Amino acid sequence: MATWQTVSGGITAPKGFRAAGIAAGLKPSGAKDLALIVSDVDAIAAGVFTTNQVSAACVDYCRQRLAAKASARAILCNAGQANAATGDGGWQDAQDSAQAVGDALGISPDAVLLASTGVIGQRIRMEPLKAGIPVVVEQLTAGENEAARAIMTTDLVSKSIALETMMDGRPVRIGGISKGSGMIHPNMATMLAFVTCDAAVSPPLWQEMLSRAADKSFNQITVDGDTSTNDSLVALANGESRTPAITAPGAAADQLEAMLTQVCIHLAKAIARDGEGATCLVEVTATGAANDKSARQIARTVAGSSLVKSAVFGRDPNWGRIAGAAGRAGVAFDQSDLDIYLGDVQLLREGQPLPFDRAAASGYLKQAAAGDYLKDDTVAIAVKVGHGPGHGIAWGCDLSYDYVKINADYTT
Amino acid sequence: MATWQTVSGGITAPKGFRAAGIAAGLKPSGAKDLALIVSDVDAIAAGVFTTNQVSAACVDYCRQRLAAKASARAILCNAGQANAATGDGGWQDAQDSAQAVGDALGISPDAVLLASTGVIGQRIRMEPLKAGIPVVVEQLTAGENEAARAIMTTDLVSKSIALETMMDGRPVRIGGISKGSGMIHPNMATMLAFVTCDAAVSPPLWQEMLSRAADKSFNQITVDGDTSTNDSLVALANGESRTPAITAPGAAADQLEAMLTQVCIHLAKAIARDGEGATCLVEVTATGAANDKSARQIARTVAGSSLVKSAVFGRDPNWGRIAGAAGRAGVAFDQSDLDIYLGDVQLLREGQPLPFDRAAASGYLKQAAAGDYLKDDTVAIAVKVGHGPGHGIAWGCDLSYDYVKINADYTT
Repeated sequence: MATWQTVSGGITAPKGFRAAGIAAGLKPSGAKDLALIVSDVDAIAAGVFTTNQVSAACVDYCRQRLAAKASARAILCNAGQANAATGDGGWQDAQDSAQAVGDALGISPDAVLLASTGVIGQRIRMEPLKAGIPVVVEQLTAGENEAARAIMTTDLVSKSIALETMMDGRPVRIGGISKGSGMIHPNMATMLAFVTCDAAVSPPLWQEMLSRAADKSFNQITVDGDTSTNDSLVALANGESRTPAITAPGAAADQLEAMLTQVCIHLAKAIARDGEGATCLVEVTATGAANDKSARQIARTVAGSSLVKSAVFGRDPNWGRIAGAAGRAGVAFDQSDLDIYLGDVQLLREGQPLPFDRAAASGYLKQAAAGDYLKDDTVAIAVKVGHGPGHGIAWGCDLSYDYVKINADYTT
Repeated sequence: MATWQTVSGGITAPKGFRAAGIAAGLKPSGAKDLALIVSDVDAIAAGVFTTNQVSAACVDYCRQRLAAKASARAILCNAGQANAATGDGGWQDAQDSAQAVGDALGISPDAVLLASTGVIGQRIRMEPLKAGIPVVVEQLTAGENEAARAIMTTDLVSKSIALETMMDGRPVRIGGISKGSGMIHPNMATMLAFVTCDAAVSPPLWQEMLSRAADKSFNQITVDGDTSTNDSLVALANGESRTPAITAPGAAADQLEAMLTQVCIHLAKAIARDGEGATCLVEVTATGAANDKSARQIARTVAGSSLVKSAVFGRDPNWGRIAGAAGRAGVAFDQSDLDIYLGDVQLLREGQPLPFDRAAASGYLKQAAAGDYLKDDTVAIAVKVGHGPGHGIAWGCDLSYDYVKINADYTT
């Protein structure tokens, strides 16, 4: 089993990374809105991007760059304007942004990756962006930094983590930051996350590890069923830990992938918990399916059901909605095999409703949802759909009045 | 072109049908909760049912009956308890309900079809149901009846229509009632609708017509993305119009199918407009796709997007969310072909945002949404994704605070 410990420093915990976040004037509110992550040396770069047919200029740009060469030195991320559905002008803005970062860092623009978040259809405000780039470069630091805060939109808290494991007698670290809130849904999917790592790993292996980790984490969270135009997960591995290069599957690769997956799950859960208007995290575990993919699909569908989410907000143990959501996940099962649990309370056994203490089940919801923010305010739902080995977990949040309030009036 | 006119009488407008609705005491509120529709003679019966893996006892029962013989005399529908996820006991209740109707009408229980709506996981309250059946039989009438009201749950208004066309010099009529509100989503899907017709039509043709009509109507509405365990559309055709039997495709079949489709679209739109908490109808038209199926899928995804729905509730012309939803519909297109309209105002042309008067677009939303209930309070959204012949329309509603309020506390 891989073991690791939490360390401080977020994305700059791994050796050879610096970061910063500033208020460049892109957001009308004056909040921080421009983040930069830089590796001191060329880093292997992998990415997972939105499946939306309408993809932002930055997404198209990163796909093109990574297809040409799987390495990078820097990631620039702006909040405020999504630069999606912005046509040729938006594409030019992306090119110009990379050029400006390249100029400020004295590196090739081709080594710069880009991400944007904000209002779809709005081009980046290039004047403040260009003016901000030298400022954010100036503030790059290997210590505590504001990058996690600068990529936020309607997020309430910034999301950051760093883990450390020992490989070949030396520490190897992975750090990560993410932002999410509204528009969180499976299929790479509606969030931004940046991961740094100081291990040395071959490009195809790093990409495979990242894709698998995304399937177990970011692709298993859902807030409102909408998949964004800008979703991006980018991971850099720069080798500065000076541990042996990992170029093939094996124990070392497994150890690194396990820690990478843990970083992604932490960041993904933090996004789900911080869904717009959410009052608690909902964790849905599905078992008994034919395979993990089917189990994940069922878990995701339950976690994403508006009716289940509304019931959790109402602290209402309406398990019939859980059954209904599991049944429409697109996975065949026999309803006479269906078990449903809310916390430790079993509500349905082999398709037959069990007599249960409604007050106790409602009490579980009230107690589980009342924990500390981002720590233990988790409502656990479990469904078993058969006798197969498939296992999957998904995370979501409840649906509250505030979700509607936040989204009814976002651009105007 | 087929022509028809609206007539009064709903499901009893076609010859040889009677119906009634009563308060049998199944709903705690004391509202009407038991409906019965009867044909004087054996009617050809067709049905379209939920795709949910967790299906109600009544759905399993109807599927079994219709597979054995595509005819029926009566449809019994209760509100209050869904009789879904109720195991063997629920199945027995379904059998007993059919038997009780058969006894009261003096017909075979095999000629009785069943539908239920209400709380999932709750068995039907059989004592009041059995006591109510002779009462509802007593009240059967060919005139104005309360069946449409008796199948309602959280619906605000009852939904009913009847159309008449001339075939071979004689009037042919189709009537229909439906209920919907929460849990409305494509894939036969989260609603109950019953259609009566006095034409004579062969069983396979009637089933084909009904399936195609459902694809253009009930499968194109969405309220909250949840597909119910109980969705049922059942259509009876009893031949009492004494018009020539329609047994093969042709002009007469086309005429009947066009009117059937119109009845289904009317009932489906009424359900979408009456979505829980809705303040207006949203009609999304998609064109330019490779085929109708793809166009329908795009229209449905836009109509079902929580972010689009929230924006409409906020009367916020946030067209980027329309682009984002169209892009994640699972249909490939080139975003440089994308056009978006809100009413008559074009917002995006060939992937390029157009300068537009935000106040005017917001004004369109405010004005369009402020029409008369179920008549002209329609927000029209149009997307064009290419140059193909595919065309599809979907209907939904906005997402308001009240949706959350209704669903946060439904069982307790």
